[in-house]
Amino acid sequence: MSKKQPPNASTSPRFCNMGNFMRLEKQENANGLDVGILGIPFDTGSSFRTGSRFGPSSIRKISAMIKPNNVTMEVNIMDSLSAADLGDVPIIPGYIRESYDAIEKSVSEILNAGAVPLSLGGDHSITLGELRAVGKKYGKVSLIHFDSHLDLNESVFGQAYNHGTPFRRALEEGLIDPSTSIQIGMRGSLYDPNDFKIAEDLGFEVIPGYKLHKMTAEELGQKIKERVGDTKVFLTFDIDFVDPAYAPGTGTPEVGGFTSYETLSYIQQLKDINFVGFDIVEVAPDYDCSEITAYLAANIGFEFMSILAYKKKKKNL
Amino acid sequence: MSKKQPPNASTSPRFCNMGNFMRLEKQENANGLDVGILGIPFDTGSSFRTGSRFGPSSIRKISAMIKPNNVTMEVNIMDSLSAADLGDVPIIPGYIRESYDAIEKSVSEILNAGAVPLSLGGDHSITLGELRAVGKKYGKVSLIHFDSHLDLNESVFGQAYNHGTPFRRALEEGLIDPSTSIQIGMRGSLYDPNDFKIAEDLGFEVIPGYKLHKMTAEELGQKIKERVGDTKVFLTFDIDFVDPAYAPGTGTPEVGGFTSYETLSYIQQLKDINFVGFDIVEVAPDYDCSEITAYLAANIGFEFMSILAYKKKKKNL
Amino acid sequence: MSKKQPPNASTSPRFCNMGNFMRLEKQENANGLDVGILGIPFDTGSSFRTGSRFGPSSIRKISAMIKPNNVTMEVNIMDSLSAADLGDVPIIPGYIRESYDAIEKSVSEILNAGAVPLSLGGDHSITLGELRAVGKKYGKVSLIHFDSHLDLNESVFGQAYNHGTPFRRALEEGLIDPSTSIQIGMRGSLYDPNDFKIAEDLGFEVIPGYKLHKMTAEELGQKIKERVGDTKVFLTFDIDFVDPAYAPGTGTPEVGGFTSYETLSYIQQLKDINFVGFDIVEVAPDYDCSEITAYLAANIGFEFMSILAYKKKKKNL
Amino acid sequence: MSKKQPPNASTSPRFCNMGNFMRLEKQENANGLDVGILGIPFDTGSSFRTGSRFGPSSIRKISAMIKPNNVTMEVNIMDSLSAADLGDVPIIPGYIRESYDAIEKSVSEILNAGAVPLSLGGDHSITLGELRAVGKKYGKVSLIHFDSHLDLNESVFGQAYNHGTPFRRALEEGLIDPSTSIQIGMRGSLYDPNDFKIAEDLGFEVIPGYKLHKMTAEELGQKIKERVGDTKVFLTFDIDFVDPAYAPGTGTPEVGGFTSYETLSYIQQLKDINFVGFDIVEVAPDYDCSEITAYLAANIGFEFMSILAYKKKKKNL
Amino acid sequence: MSKKQPPNASTSPRFCNMGNFMRLEKQENANGLDVGILGIPFDTGSSFRTGSRFGPSSIRKISAMIKPNNVTMEVNIMDSLSAADLGDVPIIPGYIRESYDAIEKSVSEILNAGAVPLSLGGDHSITLGELRAVGKKYGKVSLIHFDSHLDLNESVFGQAYNHGTPFRRALEEGLIDPSTSIQIGMRGSLYDPNDFKIAEDLGFEVIPGYKLHKMTAEELGQKIKERVGDTKVFLTFDIDFVDPAYAPGTGTPEVGGFTSYETLSYIQQLKDINFVGFDIVEVAPDYDCSEITAYLAANIGFEFMSILAYKKKKKNL
Amino acid sequence: MSKKQPPNASTSPRFCNMGNFMRLEKQENANGLDVGILGIPFDTGSSFRTGSRFGPSSIRKISAMIKPNNVTMEVNIMDSLSAADLGDVPIIPGYIRESYDAIEKSVSEILNAGAVPLSLGGDHSITLGELRAVGKKYGKVSLIHFDSHLDLNESVFGQAYNHGTPFRRALEEGLIDPSTSIQIGMRGSLYDPNDFKIAEDLGFEVIPGYKLHKMTAEELGQKIKERVGDTKVFLTFDIDFVDPAYAPGTGTPEVGGFTSYETLSYIQQLKDINFVGFDIVEVAPDYDCSEITAYLAANIGFEFMSILAYKKKKKNL
Repeated sequence: MSKKQPPNASTSPRFCNMGNFMRLEKQENANGLDVGILGIPFDTGSSFRTGSRFGPSSIRKISAMIKPNNVTMEVNIMDSLSAADLGDVPIIPGYIRESYDAIEKSVSEILNAGAVPLSLGGDHSITLGELRAVGKKYGKVSLIHFDSHLDLNESVFGQAYNHGTPFRRALEEGLIDPSTSIQIGMRGSLYDPNDFKIAEDLGFEVIPGYKLHKMTAEELGQKIKERVGDTKVFLTFDIDFVDPAYAPGTGTPEVGGFTSYETLSYIQQLKDINFVGFDIVEVAPDYDCSEITAYLAANIGFEFMSILAYKKKKKNL
Repeated sequence: MSKKQPPNASTSPRFCNMGNFMRLEKQENANGLDVGILGIPFDTGSSFRTGSRFGPSSIRKISAMIKPNNVTMEVNIMDSLSAADLGDVPIIPGYIRESYDAIEKSVSEILNAGAVPLSLGGDHSITLGELRAVGKKYGKVSLIHFDSHLDLNESVFGQAYNHGTPFRRALEEGLIDPSTSIQIGMRGSLYDPNDFKIAEDLGFEVIPGYKLHKMTAEELGQKIKERVGDTKVFLTFDIDFVDPAYAPGTGTPEVGGFTSYETLSYIQQLKDINFVGFDIVEVAPDYDCSEITAYLAANIGFEFMSILAYKKKKKNL
Repeated sequence: MSKKQPPNASTSPRFCNMGNFMRLEKQENANGLDVGILGIPFDTGSSFRTGSRFGPSSIRKISAMIKPNNVTMEVNIMDSLSAADLGDVPIIPGYIRESYDAIEKSVSEILNAGAVPLSLGGDHSITLGELRAVGKKYGKVSLIHFDSHLDLNESVFGQAYNHGTPFRRALEEGLIDPSTSIQIGMRGSLYDPNDFKIAEDLGFEVIPGYKLHKMTAEELGQKIKERVGDTKVFLTFDIDFVDPAYAPGTGTPEVGGFTSYETLSYIQQLKDINFVGFDIVEVAPDYDCSEITAYLAANIGFEFMSILAYKKKKKNL
Repeated sequence: MSKKQPPNASTSPRFCNMGNFMRLEKQENANGLDVGILGIPFDTGSSFRTGSRFGPSSIRKISAMIKPNNVTMEVNIMDSLSAADLGDVPIIPGYIRESYDAIEKSVSEILNAGAVPLSLGGDHSITLGELRAVGKKYGKVSLIHFDSHLDLNESVFGQAYNHGTPFRRALEEGLIDPSTSIQIGMRGSLYDPNDFKIAEDLGFEVIPGYKLHKMTAEELGQKIKERVGDTKVFLTFDIDFVDPAYAPGTGTPEVGGFTSYETLSYIQQLKDINFVGFDIVEVAPDYDCSEITAYLAANIGFEFMSILAYKKKKKNL
Repeated sequence: MSKKQPPNASTSPRFCNMGNFMRLEKQENANGLDVGILGIPFDTGSSFRTGSRFGPSSIRKISAMIKPNNVTMEVNIMDSLSAADLGDVPIIPGYIRESYDAIEKSVSEILNAGAVPLSLGGDHSITLGELRAVGKKYGKVSLIHFDSHLDLNESVFGQAYNHGTPFRRALEEGLIDPSTSIQIGMRGSLYDPNDFKIAEDLGFEVIPGYKLHKMTAEELGQKIKERVGDTKVFLTFDIDFVDPAYAPGTGTPEVGGFTSYETLSYIQQLKDINFVGFDIVEVAPDYDCSEITAYLAANIGFEFMSILAYKKKKKNL
Repeated sequence: MSKKQPPNASTSPRFCNMGNFMRLEKQENANGLDVGILGIPFDTGSSFRTGSRFGPSSIRKISAMIKPNNVTMEVNIMDSLSAADLGDVPIIPGYIRESYDAIEKSVSEILNAGAVPLSLGGDHSITLGELRAVGKKYGKVSLIHFDSHLDLNESVFGQAYNHGTPFRRALEEGLIDPSTSIQIGMRGSLYDPNDFKIAEDLGFEVIPGYKLHKMTAEELGQKIKERVGDTKVFLTFDIDFVDPAYAPGTGTPEVGGFTSYETLSYIQQLKDINFVGFDIVEVAPDYDCSEITAYLAANIGFEFMSILAYKKKKKNL
């Protein structure tokens, strides 16, 4: 059982002492933890709207509304998991290479302590930094990637590093195995008519939005599980996977997306996968309405923690 | 036919003389009315965000957009019903017991005049005051409860009265019969893993959100009708039943909810039920976007009035 | 291939030189164009909220996010079409008759140059001015009308011209042939219980919202194609067809509407129709949240252009 | 003493039964009143941003915060005056001539009942309709005009009637005597370098913003009193007189303006003037922040009522 | 020198690890501190708009922008003072008496540790709880009260406790000595024409807004110092002292107020006063614009800490 | 006389064809111009809030409200000056060194065409790029710098380039002569107690906010003129010089600032100075309220153009 229980909301109002994810304790390092929550407030990689540097604080604040029991998964994440909020990576705004080093260092510390990192972005460029740490620890991993964009560009504005290129770089750096990786939800207008083909040529499986709209959650879950098998998996969730009606607070929204119910249903299919890390990126609170985007992001984080709790509980049975 | 016709919007612009629900006349008491609209601007029972004290004025303002004919129900509510806006209950902000007395008194006056109260909240704590009035008039009634939360807590923050406890108190006070009552749409993370079981142990039927997402409107309608039969029924509608994308303006939103179309479809199934009162609660305009929450709440109120009009029209045939 | 290519977003950030639709070039006239984008910032016809005079600038700004390739249609609209932004019609705020003349003149110039006008409103009253130009060029045309309202009133506030009457006037003026026209998505409360019947008596086919909610996109596409056949067709799209959750930025929203995915799916069914003009109306940015309404409108415009590109490409094969 | 006392805010919360100005009673006509509050929700005359049609409802709502005692004037306006809210003029959006007739009719009824009209706009075009009623009752009157614009254009967009021309028209129609009239606060960039000279050539006295910034409230008061003497005076207050920091909610804001304290100080100088009517125009709530513009407008209305109360009290001594 | 230095913003971006006041460390108790920052997120005492329960988190977040050196006072507060953020009082929303006990307890702990409490509200009712703790520690103290309201009502809505009554209660409970207390900035319309006289009859000195507008900061400073002498002083600052243009984010704004520059100038006059406690109340972030109210509140807190640092530095010389 | 007259707002509504500064024509290069308006949408240098990349488009849009005559300066800028909007610099978001090259190139082109650049930021880091172009053309120039911050840091986050360091770099690069330069309006809390002294040691004159608050506009004008004499002068205006009440839409606001009237008054003192370039930076529209910040920025640009027009007119006499 977690030594780090957040305050009980039935005696401590949830608007008291907001600040850490789910009002967990702040901890300097990940020693003894199952899950380490990490803020990565870096948005220099954004090609259109910025502002996701305030994403971690926005998600943390409203996550005070989340309670510990997950009915669908039948777990109490606070009873099952030892979790803490590890604060923010000291990134350097405006300097992506330097920030990648800082991100890699922070994520490595979590991994080396034996915990699973759950990072809150920040724009999608940050995932490359996370994957470098994962690669150093575990070698090549599988990627489950929810997004409306592939983020596989050769370069953007002639530059190698920003939020349009992380998975191309990760591939080149040997951090992910495309043959066990899958990209889900891509849609919208494209620069290149062959974007999906390029992804497939690189070895990824792609389930574009228009196909996903015809699938059930169970069918998606089946496809993903077949793809990743029992490999080590990193899941990256770009909030613009969700339709702007449900997630307006993001930098490059895309219409024709998915509902909050569908989103949670998809994630709940993944409880038997062998996860080594998660992130949730691109929440930009200046564009949010009534914190609905941040709250959805917080719930996605809660589902990720629930998966870990479920697996731990199952293992302990 | 109603003696109290609102101004005709094809000659009087709908932004003129906004203020009363559907621009109905203001009336001091419910004498001669079929339906009395009552504002209950009380939000002291809120455990997270407050602001539903401005709910009634927000719903009333935007309700000027609603026109009298309901196509699905095939009724003109203004032709069929005598309705008026009875203004706001003189609640006492910060003082829940005193406010319950005020609510009970106002609702009792409507009931004693032979009218059906349609109350606009306010947070969900107010329903206990309403049910006390209903209980005094009709004895124990059935409850149809749309919400994302059960609101059946033993206590919150060690206190008996607030928006997390009204139906536990109503049960204890003998105001509702759980065996003919039903709770619909509950979802989200929970404090207690057994919340749904507790509700069932108390005698309620619960249709959690994850089950409702698999049902048709007709199936839900059937379930509800079977449950309540021909008993006297009070319907309480917490706007957070609806997904935050459709109803951001509320105090404790919950992702994974229902659309506005689904919501209206569910209500339209209930036209043969024997209603003695309605409320719509938890609209908090400070968190609303472009008044979409308030306008949905106003439409829900319109559907409730349409049910009464339909029943009256049918009876008079 | 278009002589007027917008800047390449992979070298020129999309927030640079925003202003014209999809950052196309501004052009004085439509000579040599396949499509002319025209702003009609007129909102004097609005019966409730105004503000759609800022619709064209809002749609144009955020349309910088759209890229040229349409995956579903398998076209690059910039390669296939010659398109430019023709700026705004010099309407006269407060004066509808004078503004109709200005609109008719501007749209006629586009039509006479052999291009298809794609107009951005403005309130729905503007469509009458557009249809007068279309009528002068092509005689009576078919109308495909997506909206939550019929806009067929005899008069509003005793006046012949505003956003509630354009299609009644167009009918009287012999601009549209109701027997090959179709109105789609109407819903919400009504002034007159017989509104749908009136539309049918006038000769239109109406697919109300409650019927559309039971149809697939393919079924709708089939119905529309059967109705319009190979006649010349004008498509008018009122953004309040879409549910307020997806399109809050509009003057007379209506709950119970359609999602952005459904909306795009419906339009993608229409690629074989013989279009002579399009408009997208009623985007009111003061009521928008995070530009989601304007961005959806921009995407609808992109789909319209994609249809034209698809047809041109097909013809050229 | 007023027969129409608003509810006592120390027993009835100010957020209950909001809707009428200062929660006064709604009355059908002005019989027996000293002051009649009239909403004129017309914004078709706006040349830039619209939305002042929602001005009256916004001012009324927040005016619930105002209490009856004016310390500076040493009066309780509710004790001294008989006042009521007369609702809104049934203007016709989009039709200015027809709306002028409706405005003239409503204001005439107030004047003929012996009351002073206090009108809430609406854009500044409405004042011409009001002045026509005043002219019919009292002949030519003096004008005190607070504004950042002169509103004396010959025409705008080639049209005689809109919010840039009312005082030119009033002059032509013989409704105001420029030799006893004064315009105060004009500033900002101009179309015509001679605008101030034109006003003076027409006979007005103009105190531009840059001069007023060098004057004390007492000096301004002296100047105004010298100008209007003991003539009958109509005061028209355009909220854009105030700096946008204090009054962002307006259609054509102008920087370099006046504070709320300065504004109230100026009005308090005018207590010995013989007023026959007032209006407050151009409050556009969609552009307001936290209702600060509407609340300032409500306070300006309160000061106007206080002047009337002061004069009545003084007369009765 | 403080053992608790916040992160250096020139190496750690100020948007990293936001959450505690000025990013100070969180500490369980006030042992060893000069100043203890305490959140009191209680808004049940609000008579109009609520929402100040989110005041502490809003002020804390944006306070990350404040740097440690105060030029005017010539102090580095982090070098001079030992300070920490003590989190929030576990108040009970909806229950004022119970919350007063919690507030008193938390403030007493700070006082008993020898530190000065700097509390962040919350509505103005909370100050009574704070004063009870102060009274228990120090006996009767002097009050410096910046506000637009006197908050001296006998009762509001017939109830003894809410944000309109705290200083009447404090007087009755013998917690403050009116003869050495002063109330500053009161303005706006009043319920009772004699409000200022009542305050004076109770023994307070009152400097209404209209007088303060004629005074220099130095004159105000002189008046205050003469009044409080070398007594122990509690300073309570209601953010609605400031004009709504500068502080829109509050529950009962009042026009005709003071600028941010004036506000800071007034406080800087008070550096030789013997303070035993401070609070800043009524920041309601839902009504804030771009966090300007919260940031002003944070700066006021910084000035309070600077006074303490100045006095400590002076004593140590 | 300008060959490039913007549309006449008395015939073309100002909301038509918005997009270029003051609706001037877009021009590819500065040939034949007196003034070239240049957008520099770069915000990667921001240390706290980003979003000024949307500053140029926001200022341009609302600048449609500005008319050509400046009463105080007695000039019509469109008659006197040839001006055009040159669009945006193709900066590279996330890459400051590369963006500096792009900025330098664009500004050099304007200077080499003999025109004065008036640039719209973007964050304050951009000014270094502009000064490099100015230095190449004119050698060392004088700097007039309005701001709440000195922007003279040695480094920020260990990096040489961002919006806290431009003038330290400019000094090192020999682009500005501190002995004829002046920094105005600095205030707020500081990292280093000696910040002002450091600036003075570097050779600058500093007029901190607290001193400016005691000066008249004329006194400031005199001081500036004495300092810069008849040298070539570059004026850089950071919108956070202005108080957040008047300019909330910025990245690092500072309370205790100046009003819009004071700001314009200060600039109007500078009409005899020999300007070679201007910029206005740090407008961040996501934090703006009702576009008041952008409109103030547009007016500041108008005053800059008026100075040039005044000087040209005077020279031509």
